[in-house]
Amino acid sequence: MRKFIVIPDSFKGTMSSRTICSIMEEAILRRIPGAQVVCVPVADGGEGSVEAFLQAVGGEKRHCSVQGPYGEPANGFFALLPDGTAVVEMAAAAGLPMVGGARNAERTTTYGVGQLMAAALDAGCKKLVVGLGGSATNDGGCGAAAALGAVFLDKNGTSFVPVGRTLKQVDHIDLRNLHPRLKEVPVIAMCDVDTPLCGPTGAAAVFGPQKGADPAMVARLDAGLQNLADVVRRDTGKEILDLPGAGAAGGMGGGMAALLGAQMQMGIETVLDTVGFNAMLDGAEMVFTGEGKLDTQSLRGKVVLGVAHRAQKAGVPVVAVVGDIGDHIEQVYEQGVTGVFSINRVALPYEAMKSRAADDLRLTMENLLRFYDCARKTGLA
Amino acid sequence: MRKFIVIPDSFKGTMSSRTICSIMEEAILRRIPGAQVVCVPVADGGEGSVEAFLQAVGGEKRHCSVQGPYGEPANGFFALLPDGTAVVEMAAAAGLPMVGGARNAERTTTYGVGQLMAAALDAGCKKLVVGLGGSATNDGGCGAAAALGAVFLDKNGTSFVPVGRTLKQVDHIDLRNLHPRLKEVPVIAMCDVDTPLCGPTGAAAVFGPQKGADPAMVARLDAGLQNLADVVRRDTGKEILDLPGAGAAGGMGGGMAALLGAQMQMGIETVLDTVGFNAMLDGAEMVFTGEGKLDTQSLRGKVVLGVAHRAQKAGVPVVAVVGDIGDHIEQVYEQGVTGVFSINRVALPYEAMKSRAADDLRLTMENLLRFYDCARKTGLA
Repeated sequence: MRKFIVIPDSFKGTMSSRTICSIMEEAILRRIPGAQVVCVPVADGGEGSVEAFLQAVGGEKRHCSVQGPYGEPANGFFALLPDGTAVVEMAAAAGLPMVGGARNAERTTTYGVGQLMAAALDAGCKKLVVGLGGSATNDGGCGAAAALGAVFLDKNGTSFVPVGRTLKQVDHIDLRNLHPRLKEVPVIAMCDVDTPLCGPTGAAAVFGPQKGADPAMVARLDAGLQNLADVVRRDTGKEILDLPGAGAAGGMGGGMAALLGAQMQMGIETVLDTVGFNAMLDGAEMVFTGEGKLDTQSLRGKVVLGVAHRAQKAGVPVVAVVGDIGDHIEQVYEQGVTGVFSINRVALPYEAMKSRAADDLRLTMENLLRFYDCARKTGLA
Repeated sequence: MRKFIVIPDSFKGTMSSRTICSIMEEAILRRIPGAQVVCVPVADGGEGSVEAFLQAVGGEKRHCSVQGPYGEPANGFFALLPDGTAVVEMAAAAGLPMVGGARNAERTTTYGVGQLMAAALDAGCKKLVVGLGGSATNDGGCGAAAALGAVFLDKNGTSFVPVGRTLKQVDHIDLRNLHPRLKEVPVIAMCDVDTPLCGPTGAAAVFGPQKGADPAMVARLDAGLQNLADVVRRDTGKEILDLPGAGAAGGMGGGMAALLGAQMQMGIETVLDTVGFNAMLDGAEMVFTGEGKLDTQSLRGKVVLGVAHRAQKAGVPVVAVVGDIGDHIEQVYEQGVTGVFSINRVALPYEAMKSRAADDLRLTMENLLRFYDCARKTGLA
């Protein structure tokens, strides 16, 4: 049976990776009936990541009651994949859509995320992936750490669960009672941003405003994260001020790295590891991938190149179907991309293209597969 | 040796068919060194048509002195192709660029075009193709016919060479002294428009304004062409009022059909016949064609479909690389087009795309050929 893999990123603001998967799959099956099409919608760590992993490799969706961003009861969930990996998405317990209009980065907590992680550990997971993204919080991951047994003390020795507003009151951190399985289960913080913890490009400055922070609040949040970093340095010997990505999701990256021993990893690498992409490639005729814009200005976390690097090693050709193609992309060929095709088929501005993107993707795939079929026959002849 | 044919139309207002040919050829040779690439830039009958045919099949460019649009001396030329076909382009003796700012459709003549045709007949051509297009004239082809021996008489029996202004004075037409070779040499008027001779969609109304006619002049020109049609009907028995394309090039279509026995033919069909496309297809692996916009609203004279119809019969796949792709193009697949690809690779309006079209075509061809190569290997494996 002829085997194809479709593994696209979302086209941000235009189409989800799941939508793209189904269009690509349908196009392949229309031209090559009976083909095996393995669909991997690429999760970015934000909302929908758990579903994306479940769709890619199957597994079980577990539900559990947790605290929401304001401590309210919420219905959380995580995935337990067939290989024992658990996937938690922060957005399921601390997501921005959960607070509606009540955005306040000084008062929201990641406690529920820690509860989901604890539930996953209790369920016996062998690896724990946490998608950072889409959070309403700026608590430096202290809430999550608290739910997993970390104890935060103020200068009076009183324990509390810090939120953005009270980060500056953290005087001492006690990690002796952390969830015991954290010692044996590797934790991956899935994150595509380089955001540092503090400063003008830090968590509060960059992401605070979309979480309801005005400039004065941004300054207070930034000072709180700075205090957290100082206490972390003193009590654990770890430096999170310099850590790229520490500022992801309101400092969740830094907190997870320092307090929970998490390893930060690019989303696409996490996806490829978690779905067992290397094994998937075995026997595959071609990989279709894609993303909203392919360019070489920022290669960090790019789905197409992440996919291509591994496919190239396995000798499987990769075709990228993308929104826009930037300039000077020649180097992507060396990195394993056979061809890059834009879905744009009329000269119109982006706003006009958005609403027709699904149709345009469908047409592009249809034509690529017709061409592929014809070229293949030429080879056979 | 692997053989490819590139036979694109121009992308109107963006790239000439010759430019597109050279980009396509270069892209093929870069990926498939040593391939045989047969280039046929599609002529549309306008300026550059003679060169296009010469580039496609070789042959000889003959120069001769003729009268320009105002009777001034001009350097005309025509092509004598290896198979004995001569190609004349109207624009070489009656072209709009030849008059500069002095546009006056009432005073310009096609006499020089007839001189070129006479020279081609005298040179022994076996077939005579005349490209209609880009003319500065509205003389119903009377000038050209006069140069070939037609005699136009006014009501006093005085002979004259009618121009737009004096068409209404034509009272009788005497064709007894036409160039003798017109009886034995087929004449093709190459023309992609359906324009009728007269009326609101006729030669004067549609093309008059770009030749310097104001509304009053348009009305006079239209009346003159009407008179010509009446005299033609009476003296030759031919009806050119109803003839589609009679209004092409200021009535040149109608004049050639009625007075010179010319057959009107779509440009692409003329090109395919003239270059011997059917024979070219023999042994070809693939045909690359293209045009500015592929759609199914008007199929008349469309290059891509004209090419595809013949290639399909020969079993050679056709790939179309185009500017824009219109909606509902599914039927082009049935008509022999394997795949259609747009050169657009960023979501920008047309004005922004124009200046980058050559680069975008280059990139599209590069990726198609990479993909082709890879697909072909899949077939070989």
